Amino acid sequence: MDDVRIIEVKQSVFEDNNKDAQLLRESLKAENTFLLNLMSSPGSGKTTTLLKLVGYLKDKVRMAVMEADIDSSIDAQAIQNAGIKAIQIHTGGMCHLDADMTRQGLRELGTDDVDLVILENVGNLVCPAEFDTGAIKNMTILSVPEGDDKPLKYPLMYETCDLLVVNKIDVMEYFDFDKEKVIANAKMRNPDIDIIFISAKTGEGIEKVAEWILKQVEDWNK
Amino acid sequence: MDDVRIIEVKQSVFEDNNKDAQLLRESLKAENTFLLNLMSSPGSGKTTTLLKLVGYLKDKVRMAVMEADIDSSIDAQAIQNAGIKAIQIHTGGMCHLDADMTRQGLRELGTDDVDLVILENVGNLVCPAEFDTGAIKNMTILSVPEGDDKPLKYPLMYETCDLLVVNKIDVMEYFDFDKEKVIANAKMRNPDIDIIFISAKTGEGIEKVAEWILKQVEDWNK
Repeated sequence: MDDVRIIEVKQSVFEDNNKDAQLLRESLKAENTFLLNLMSSPGSGKTTTLLKLVGYLKDKVRMAVMEADIDSSIDAQAIQNAGIKAIQIHTGGMCHLDADMTRQGLRELGTDDVDLVILENVGNLVCPAEFDTGAIKNMTILSVPEGDDKPLKYPLMYETCDLLVVNKIDVMEYFDFDKEKVIANAKMRNPDIDIIFISAKTGEGIEKVAEWILKQVEDWNK
Repeated sequence: MDDVRIIEVKQSVFEDNNKDAQLLRESLKAENTFLLNLMSSPGSGKTTTLLKLVGYLKDKVRMAVMEADIDSSIDAQAIQNAGIKAIQIHTGGMCHLDADMTRQGLRELGTDDVDLVILENVGNLVCPAEFDTGAIKNMTILSVPEGDDKPLKYPLMYETCDLLVVNKIDVMEYFDFDKEKVIANAKMRNPDIDIIFISAKTGEGIEKVAEWILKQVEDWNK
């Protein structure tokens, strides 16, 4: 099995990240590559969800994954073992990716043969929400054990995201987690947010997330 | 019931946070105030653990709590309702507290009648580990649903902490979490780290954490 490639990205030299993110989006549009930015707390199940999504999506769309981490490359290796192109981005201690760091990753990944790139951002509910990566859509995962109050405490994450995936619903009965409350809290931050409940462990709801992603890719290519 | 006080702190003007943190520690030493910095991911149970600790500690030591959050004041209100002095620190979007922000909080809190201050840092495994708050000791909570691999992915948090509290052990059987593995992973990052397993929900292990804290306060005042 091949070792996964590890890219050490450098912090952007651009002062205006928002402008740079817009430029990246325009160049992605020109080459018909869809970039999805996946964010969440540490341990909410980003990689497990991605692995299940890869299983569903890899025969329907030409896809690749960029895994961002402060250290380690276990996530990208797992994705590569699942049979799709993946690279590991090391942020050198940085708590988020900006647009230029994302561009460095895309360049190393190579996107000529890819229609969908999923970027797994650093596990952090604060900083990644502040930096536009240039992604076309943003998605966040909240796991049941974290609690239904997270949209109240990390407002920008929910304002920024197009899709909220609530993961680990298989353990809902063991936690004090209210489905209606999390919907109300998320919609308060962002009335337009889509919400899908899943269990990455059992696979429940994964198909809905995959279909949501395929719909976004289709709309982007129209 | 009184509304909790909310302090909007400003980012430090000091260039050298490490030096500033050292100065804060010296002034805390001079007035016999022990500061404990509590860090973790969002949703790992910092506030629930704190509430249980307050129940155990409040008759044994004169204590107060500073709750740092980007937004909202529900945590500080809950602590104040438990019968001890608490303030809410709003970081204005910042992902961590530095030593001067901590000092601003302590000043507003008032420490003349307090021997132990617990600071609940912003829920984030990355940035808070990079900024010395001036605390005497650092403690992190990892909850079982987050997974036993977190010390591999967020090395600095574990290198920085004196105590790792593993929370939510009451749901251990529903998750793929290996006690021995988390101990090995944490010790790999920091051979001197103390580790205590608890359930803030059932109260199991809380007494051990409280006794650990009392021992640190005692040693500091020697």
